[in-house]
Amino acid sequence: MDAVNVDAMLARFTEHWAPKKIAQINDYDVRIVKVQGEFTWHKHADTDEFFLVLGGQLTIQMRDRDVVLAPGELFVVPRGVEHCPRADIETAVLLLEPSSVVNTGDAGGELTAEVERLA
Amino acid sequence: MDAVNVDAMLARFTEHWAPKKIAQINDYDVRIVKVQGEFTWHKHADTDEFFLVLGGQLTIQMRDRDVVLAPGELFVVPRGVEHCPRADIETAVLLLEPSSVVNTGDAGGELTAEVERLA
Repeated sequence: MDAVNVDAMLARFTEHWAPKKIAQINDYDVRIVKVQGEFTWHKHADTDEFFLVLGGQLTIQMRDRDVVLAPGELFVVPRGVEHCPRADIETAVLLLEPSSVVNTGDAGGELTAEVERLA
Repeated sequence: MDAVNVDAMLARFTEHWAPKKIAQINDYDVRIVKVQGEFTWHKHADTDEFFLVLGGQLTIQMRDRDVVLAPGELFVVPRGVEHCPRADIETAVLLLEPSSVVNTGDAGGELTAEVERLA
């Protein structure tokens, strides 16, 4: 592989809630996603999920509290914890999780997205 | 955990080549490190290693080529590939790798650092 420029990868797509893979480390993916609005409540029973906000503002709603992330801020949703991301403005996020993870976790539904590989 | 601000974490230390853990995802660490000068040639036989430059400029020297990373650029050194990071100016890097990884890999030596946990 060559060096991957994150902003250049973000410039290659416009759709929301459709993660793109930009790197692989062993059996983990680094993915980027653009989001706006509210996702769906779901959980990942077998894995933690890492969020790093690149631009915008992300609210990770959980059943007992919300965590609000500005650019340069990160949070890990522990395995099994129900969460529902929300962004009032368009927001770019870097995700780290096992390559097997489906974005909607246990919830499924129409927001379930195939992960396209950009790099 | 609460939200973790990467810049705030970087402000908490000054030493070079001593990775700090700022998040854990399953059995993987997200680490940040400040570097300047040249590290030591080494490899990690059992794992890929992810580098994302946050500030400065990082050259990842490999035996057959160099990869130069500006802020916002990432690279994955494949398992088993000898590499030697170098930074001509002070550079901040985000690393992702299994929690068991030792910074100097197979090389050992005086640059081997315990990983302090900041968050």
